[in-house]
Amino acid sequence: MSEHPIELGPLPQCWKRRHLLGLEDLTAEELTAVLDKADLFKQALVAGTRRVPLLSGITNCNLFFENSTRTRTSFSLAARRLGADSIDFSASTSSLSKGETVIDTAKNIEAMGADVMVVRHRTPGTPHLLAQNLDCCVINAGDGPHEHPTQGLLDILTIRQRRGTLQGLTVALVGDIAHSRTARSNIWGLKTLGAHVIVCGPSTLVSPRWKELDVEFSYSLDDILPRVDVLNLLRIQFERQHDRPFPSVREYAHLYAMNRDRLARAKDDILILAPGPINRGVEVTPDVADGPQSAILEQVTNGVAVRMAVLWLVTSVLRAAPVGS
Amino acid sequence: MSEHPIELGPLPQCWKRRHLLGLEDLTAEELTAVLDKADLFKQALVAGTRRVPLLSGITNCNLFFENSTRTRTSFSLAARRLGADSIDFSASTSSLSKGETVIDTAKNIEAMGADVMVVRHRTPGTPHLLAQNLDCCVINAGDGPHEHPTQGLLDILTIRQRRGTLQGLTVALVGDIAHSRTARSNIWGLKTLGAHVIVCGPSTLVSPRWKELDVEFSYSLDDILPRVDVLNLLRIQFERQHDRPFPSVREYAHLYAMNRDRLARAKDDILILAPGPINRGVEVTPDVADGPQSAILEQVTNGVAVRMAVLWLVTSVLRAAPVGS
Amino acid sequence: MSEHPIELGPLPQCWKRRHLLGLEDLTAEELTAVLDKADLFKQALVAGTRRVPLLSGITNCNLFFENSTRTRTSFSLAARRLGADSIDFSASTSSLSKGETVIDTAKNIEAMGADVMVVRHRTPGTPHLLAQNLDCCVINAGDGPHEHPTQGLLDILTIRQRRGTLQGLTVALVGDIAHSRTARSNIWGLKTLGAHVIVCGPSTLVSPRWKELDVEFSYSLDDILPRVDVLNLLRIQFERQHDRPFPSVREYAHLYAMNRDRLARAKDDILILAPGPINRGVEVTPDVADGPQSAILEQVTNGVAVRMAVLWLVTSVLRAAPVGS
Repeated sequence: MSEHPIELGPLPQCWKRRHLLGLEDLTAEELTAVLDKADLFKQALVAGTRRVPLLSGITNCNLFFENSTRTRTSFSLAARRLGADSIDFSASTSSLSKGETVIDTAKNIEAMGADVMVVRHRTPGTPHLLAQNLDCCVINAGDGPHEHPTQGLLDILTIRQRRGTLQGLTVALVGDIAHSRTARSNIWGLKTLGAHVIVCGPSTLVSPRWKELDVEFSYSLDDILPRVDVLNLLRIQFERQHDRPFPSVREYAHLYAMNRDRLARAKDDILILAPGPINRGVEVTPDVADGPQSAILEQVTNGVAVRMAVLWLVTSVLRAAPVGS
Repeated sequence: MSEHPIELGPLPQCWKRRHLLGLEDLTAEELTAVLDKADLFKQALVAGTRRVPLLSGITNCNLFFENSTRTRTSFSLAARRLGADSIDFSASTSSLSKGETVIDTAKNIEAMGADVMVVRHRTPGTPHLLAQNLDCCVINAGDGPHEHPTQGLLDILTIRQRRGTLQGLTVALVGDIAHSRTARSNIWGLKTLGAHVIVCGPSTLVSPRWKELDVEFSYSLDDILPRVDVLNLLRIQFERQHDRPFPSVREYAHLYAMNRDRLARAKDDILILAPGPINRGVEVTPDVADGPQSAILEQVTNGVAVRMAVLWLVTSVLRAAPVGS
Repeated sequence: MSEHPIELGPLPQCWKRRHLLGLEDLTAEELTAVLDKADLFKQALVAGTRRVPLLSGITNCNLFFENSTRTRTSFSLAARRLGADSIDFSASTSSLSKGETVIDTAKNIEAMGADVMVVRHRTPGTPHLLAQNLDCCVINAGDGPHEHPTQGLLDILTIRQRRGTLQGLTVALVGDIAHSRTARSNIWGLKTLGAHVIVCGPSTLVSPRWKELDVEFSYSLDDILPRVDVLNLLRIQFERQHDRPFPSVREYAHLYAMNRDRLARAKDDILILAPGPINRGVEVTPDVADGPQSAILEQVTNGVAVRMAVLWLVTSVLRAAPVGS
């Protein structure tokens, strides 16, 4: 329950951004800078340092046009552990129904004093639009099927912690790839850091067009399994699917679930990730989800550490040039 | 508006628990330990000490699968007055609809850094299940009709403050006993501390089977009234009842409402409790609810004090063995 | 990101109130006292002083019986910037559906330890009723069509900052006057401070009866435009109107929208206000809303400053007579 500052070291020379909109245009050096700082925050958290008041006085606002208790809570906790204030502005009902534009809503929150805005919206590019129109820092917490950079970063951090490097690893993203912002952010980050990426799932959820992203694609988990180092099991979002893209859950599980049988045919040290919430028995069976190869709960803890690192990095501009204080 | 620490004294020798799941298995010594500490917190609150930062750095999470603004707010305020951070994780919609298990939801929150989880769920035993599967502290804030231990404790604290002791008092619980977790927690706590308990209400809400809990039962408030020291008027939960268990509200009030007429036939120093929110004119008439025998608002203040005491006691394990700090 | 106290000066001699229920009965001296303190808080905010911990230990509760993310967030941020704790008690569903009276709900929150209650309710007079029945401070955040004093104050503060004084200015309130609490609070405050007020809108939204408030009224924006110093464009609340009070949005905009054409016919230094959220193209066109005459976003920042001033002033009673500390 200590509150002393940790040894973060200086701001990385390479970091000049006051927004984090996606992983597509981050360099390997920038990605590594976030991961390195996140590692330090993670070590502090695990060691019992509950508060690192580096952002005291800063106000974070979670501006979520889509519901997401989990991601929102993770950002709130990250902000508070840094000593920042964190407020939620649930825009799902209020603003849109009153005819206000997204930019006006965000400008209002900024005018109230927000320094950082964490934005989720179902329209791709919304955080980019806000970044162009606001003075405060903008972090993309999911823009439709486009990007979800902090999810990508926490997945990559978890792999790096277990394996030491991304270089040369074969990482398979399995399941609902088609509409997955998590998949896109993972692909861009993983490839920049030297991993080989396979996207794998039923043909209704994976298409050859993904080759444009310079990844391998496959319809068969069993085919690729023997040479995979990391499996990232994207969840089937039953709550969003009106036309189910496969005949039955049983069939999906039969072909794509990670279970004991498949584990026996995989590399001994295969690493299992899943962004959660998981459907036990669909993407993954309980014995695998709770087994030693699984890093599912480590991902959640890493999520807080990654968001602390991102909040600290993007607000460095504010700290470098404090206005009038 | 002071913030100085109060004289709490040492952790009671008898207290070894890192969860509070119910009052059924608490010893008289343990119950007394909570009440004694709650008394100290209450005195500090009333004296104007707004913050007692004993749990600085601790994160409390209210994990409510059922709505309850009141209990949730009371726990939040208790946590904050102790210097802890308190977040709400409203699980009513998000997790369940996404197919996640209750244990997985809770483990995710724990992995984000929660030290204490305050749980409400309509299924009896849910907090017990979580306590078996988590490393953090678990407090039951209501598990279906089973237990609501902090409500029981705040009722008992209010009685002890007004009467000095529970020993030898006759306490009647009146109204909707059948599905009341408040009734069960009261019964177990009151009996352990030496009170005689009567459960009283219409036969559809009270049954002879309650004799198994070693309490007296009665269908007539007027019969038992002359020998009652404390009346705890449980609210009729109109919003939950499809099949109303009595012919009319007027008939219920005629037989069971505490009014001026009944007050005249009761002991002079009878003490009136009601867990609230109260239905004025149903369980209790306004003149009685606002009269000198009523301790209804004292209960609310005691609720914050009791929750401060419980949070402080269950987290003592964390303080005793700080991890790495 | 500094946290040092600002030079607020002493509590104004004229300020004796522990509630702010409306602007109707505030003297010019009292209004000026709030505006002066708000100016100091605004300067501190703009200069980068994020926290002014004058209300440390104080608990504010937003008791909103109607939804309002915007006003509620503004009060929360104001409270937190003063070092106070701020909780939301959303009463829309919980309490009313359980049959509790408004006074009982508020007394419960007070018994949990709230020092200030910010109240919004659709029934005029609700905050006044609570002020009579509670010991804590009450601030009206909107009581039906009656008053919304902090909105009135922030509008007036914005005018005073831009013009130096209210004395002798002609201020027109345009649009949905009939049911506007913002209009009423503005009228009373503006007139007390020496401004001339015109209410202007379609006859279905403005009636000659407003003459009782000793204001000029007009059905034609074009008629009054040349002599107006300040235009306050009240929003058309489409979401509340079942029977639309004008034939079409296009017709409303044709007659009452502030656009480039009208701006050319107005005084050069006309000041444009709008309480927001704005309907671009209805009350105001984008070029005007984003132009140099517009102070729309300044209003939002002033809203936080005004609420800081009000919170600091009404709680001065608590600070003057600290109970037991």
